[in-house]
Amino acid sequence: MSSILKGIAASSGIAIAKAYRLVEPDLSFEEKKVDNPGQEIERFQKAMNTSRSELEVIRDRAKTELGEDKAAIFEAHLLVLSDPELTGPIEDKIKQDSVNAEAALKETADMFVTMFEQMDNEYMQERAADIRDVTKRVLSHLLGVKVLNPSMISEEVIVIAEDLTPSDTAQLNREFVKGFTTNIGGRTSHSAIMARSMEIPAVVGTKEATVEIQNGDMVIVDGLNGEVHINPTEEIIDNYKKEQGHFADQKAEWAKLIDEKSVSKDGHHVELAANIGTPADLEGVRNNGGEGIGLYRTEFLYMGRNELPTEEEQFTSYKEVLEGMEGKPVVVRTLDIGGDKELPYLNLPHEMNPFLGFRAIRLCLEETDLFKVQLRALLRASVYGNLKIMFPMISNLTEFRSAKAILLEVKEELLEEGVSVADHIEVGIMVEIPSTAVLADQFAKEVDFFSIGTNDLIQYTMAADRMNERVSYLYQPYNPAILRMIKMVIDASHKEGKWTGMCGEMAGDEIAIPILLGLGLDEFSMSATSILPARSQLLGISKEEMKTLAEEVLTMSTNEEVIAAVKKAVNL
Amino acid sequence: MSSILKGIAASSGIAIAKAYRLVEPDLSFEEKKVDNPGQEIERFQKAMNTSRSELEVIRDRAKTELGEDKAAIFEAHLLVLSDPELTGPIEDKIKQDSVNAEAALKETADMFVTMFEQMDNEYMQERAADIRDVTKRVLSHLLGVKVLNPSMISEEVIVIAEDLTPSDTAQLNREFVKGFTTNIGGRTSHSAIMARSMEIPAVVGTKEATVEIQNGDMVIVDGLNGEVHINPTEEIIDNYKKEQGHFADQKAEWAKLIDEKSVSKDGHHVELAANIGTPADLEGVRNNGGEGIGLYRTEFLYMGRNELPTEEEQFTSYKEVLEGMEGKPVVVRTLDIGGDKELPYLNLPHEMNPFLGFRAIRLCLEETDLFKVQLRALLRASVYGNLKIMFPMISNLTEFRSAKAILLEVKEELLEEGVSVADHIEVGIMVEIPSTAVLADQFAKEVDFFSIGTNDLIQYTMAADRMNERVSYLYQPYNPAILRMIKMVIDASHKEGKWTGMCGEMAGDEIAIPILLGLGLDEFSMSATSILPARSQLLGISKEEMKTLAEEVLTMSTNEEVIAAVKKAVNL
Repeated sequence: MSSILKGIAASSGIAIAKAYRLVEPDLSFEEKKVDNPGQEIERFQKAMNTSRSELEVIRDRAKTELGEDKAAIFEAHLLVLSDPELTGPIEDKIKQDSVNAEAALKETADMFVTMFEQMDNEYMQERAADIRDVTKRVLSHLLGVKVLNPSMISEEVIVIAEDLTPSDTAQLNREFVKGFTTNIGGRTSHSAIMARSMEIPAVVGTKEATVEIQNGDMVIVDGLNGEVHINPTEEIIDNYKKEQGHFADQKAEWAKLIDEKSVSKDGHHVELAANIGTPADLEGVRNNGGEGIGLYRTEFLYMGRNELPTEEEQFTSYKEVLEGMEGKPVVVRTLDIGGDKELPYLNLPHEMNPFLGFRAIRLCLEETDLFKVQLRALLRASVYGNLKIMFPMISNLTEFRSAKAILLEVKEELLEEGVSVADHIEVGIMVEIPSTAVLADQFAKEVDFFSIGTNDLIQYTMAADRMNERVSYLYQPYNPAILRMIKMVIDASHKEGKWTGMCGEMAGDEIAIPILLGLGLDEFSMSATSILPARSQLLGISKEEMKTLAEEVLTMSTNEEVIAAVKKAVNL
Repeated sequence: MSSILKGIAASSGIAIAKAYRLVEPDLSFEEKKVDNPGQEIERFQKAMNTSRSELEVIRDRAKTELGEDKAAIFEAHLLVLSDPELTGPIEDKIKQDSVNAEAALKETADMFVTMFEQMDNEYMQERAADIRDVTKRVLSHLLGVKVLNPSMISEEVIVIAEDLTPSDTAQLNREFVKGFTTNIGGRTSHSAIMARSMEIPAVVGTKEATVEIQNGDMVIVDGLNGEVHINPTEEIIDNYKKEQGHFADQKAEWAKLIDEKSVSKDGHHVELAANIGTPADLEGVRNNGGEGIGLYRTEFLYMGRNELPTEEEQFTSYKEVLEGMEGKPVVVRTLDIGGDKELPYLNLPHEMNPFLGFRAIRLCLEETDLFKVQLRALLRASVYGNLKIMFPMISNLTEFRSAKAILLEVKEELLEEGVSVADHIEVGIMVEIPSTAVLADQFAKEVDFFSIGTNDLIQYTMAADRMNERVSYLYQPYNPAILRMIKMVIDASHKEGKWTGMCGEMAGDEIAIPILLGLGLDEFSMSATSILPARSQLLGISKEEMKTLAEEVLTMSTNEEVIAAVKKAVNL
């Protein structure tokens, strides 16, 4: 039967394909005594053999489709499977204790994993991970549940998941994943940002996608209207195919603007830049005519691994991005970890309110060793392009002064070592905490630029967790209080001859762009895929008229009034 | 050996007495098989007998010292102890299953507790609580650990605790508890607010009071400097006794101001009001010359119980406070639950960031039944004094309009029922969310008054959880951003002929008072014990001079600069 789930439109476009559930299988079992250990050992060996044949197929396909490199991991898994040091003790345990194969496997494997993990040796720690993966696979065969191989998806699918973490998405084969839908998340959650960066349609926050959708169901992800159709009728599919065509035409129109300037109808130029997470995102920036990088999130360098990235690893990434942008501005944000982004290996204490906790610059100013490594890597990379450095979560001037002092100290050290560093590197801050917006005039005397991080600024200003669905109605980008804060920041920067950018989701929003143009925002940084629609919109509106509109909405009292006024003014 | 713990001065004054550890005893045990069940039954009976004698002593002392009323609970406990319906099954279990007495007691008692709790009958639910308490006592004797009877403290003590909840403090005998110190908390935590309301010295956030201090240690709580001395030398004790004397003299000086007006040196009058939690706090307000109640926190009515308070219970409390204040203004804040204040019986979902979550007015606008009961009780009480109603956590005008509409609806209903309601009741809001401060000019057109809740306003404006010690340095009341927001609110209210109060801790702070006077704050609401010192300070400073000071500090860039400027200006 055909049905529809409502969610949040997280990445535009329409995708039509079969469902692929990326849901961790249930591998729970009970330990029990068995009457016939010999038979139980046979069960175990059979599960081992099935796992082996399966892995061989996966390895061979990986070799031809993804290369030797990616296939190596499966080779390692096969080695584990044939290691008598592991299989021997499991069989002994079944025999001696008369327990079921699941219990013997789990207990023995856990012992090896713990042992290997405790060794201070990267190689052994990788072996621990291999054993953990292989155990899951064998266990799944013992229990008769299906194990997931997202990296081996080889037909067009729509991924269905509770949520997608950065490491989940890293495993997905971008060629075959046509769209995705998740139970949780909002427009600013990582899965949503990821979808826009991958340029695939996505609907998040459907609450029950993993409950309602089964493997193989035909699914339409409507990333324009935030709807997911499950097993739609032929008629609905046909209509959506038409709409897919219109969307493609629209994209073709936009594509013509790739090399155009970003100017308003009355000739005012602004910079349309992109938010990126890794050097791999550069291609999307170029394909969408980005005039710079307004936000390079360096967290991804630190995530999905077991230890801090080295100075050299960081340097390589920063250099790649700076060179790739060929002299166009690249604003790099220093580490913004904590809050909803955790690094297990930093062992940060659990906090009652992580969004109001020990994160980003607060952590870097205490863990200065970690901070200095990043700053060294950045300064070394600075000679390869147009680098600007930005500190996140600045709430008072003392923090900015401390962070800048550390930067200057690191620069001195490098110069003494004879390393070259670019002469003038602009140093700015994110404005994402209300105190900093309100005190922007004081900050403007000391920083080189501001970048308004609306995702956080809105949640703190409205005191509403943007990830919490019960208060998501309070995430109000057009609330006049937010617009007034944005104005304070822009005005303060201009008074001191500095510039202001915006790198929150709001910068690419068609309701916000007219107001922001009117308020005098200098740089708009957004998901790469939003750049061309934004340029198209800018070409059609006049800065002088938007200035009048902005003045008008600042005196309004609610979010809703502002939306209505903008829609009327620019015919949306 | 003598040692010192540093903490946060939460309630002023000096207390010297023996330590009393209010730390939950460890009643954990392992279920085990016993070889001789008969002997185990004897062990059980012995623990029962010891518990009985102990309870008889407590009951008799409670009767003479606290009255029949308070002694009744111990009578009920004694009944449980001699109930064969409970003791029979426990002894049977020891015999049949050969288990230890601890396990038999716990399992049988838990079964009865669950059974009684499921009955929809208040009497049976109280019996469940009795069984739980008695089980704890017998278990403590079986395990040889000491059970706590805080209500029976009968000599002067200083209470040492991890933290103190409202229900802990309710049990304390105010006559004998001379002071307390806790491991966690800050100046705005509930334990601190409670200490000021009880007028006893307290130092909170010492991190290790319960680790470092043993029962019977001599302890000095220095609530002026935030220090706790453990087993101090005679010399230190003598010095502190002198300081205790000075503090008493100072208090005597302040006491002369009870019936004085709160006026500045140049004759400007402001209102010095008190924050209260229950009608019992009225005595403190009268003893300290409060000119009104600036904040009546109604949460306490809802806490430490198993179900919502009835309309009648609420009406009684509100009436008592209104009558007690004899026509002086009483600002009642509607339910502010959620965040750090939970109500188990509301079954609110766990949130990742409760301070940015579904709380206060957000909850009341959804759970309108609960909200309406409170509003009915308030409106019915309104004829007994000078009631003003205030909504907490307002972040946008739509919320205020909705809350006020419900209030008017309830008023209509009451009038239709023939119940009298006061003619004009002022309806205002807490300003504790940045968006509301920034948009105060729009709110001022619709509300009757503002009350600035600095505790929350500061934490949201600085994006720093005030309960999280790792970021507590960011709780900066004098950050110019905070002061500017306060100015926005005061100016906006005056422009519309309305008034602004403040009910956060800042209103009673000697650094803040000069600035707030200069900014034109109309009402200062604080812990009752802060009123006389505040009045004394006000008498010595001129509003005109403070206006100049306020203008000056608003152009500064950091918290520290502001503190230095105020100290210099008013000789602190």
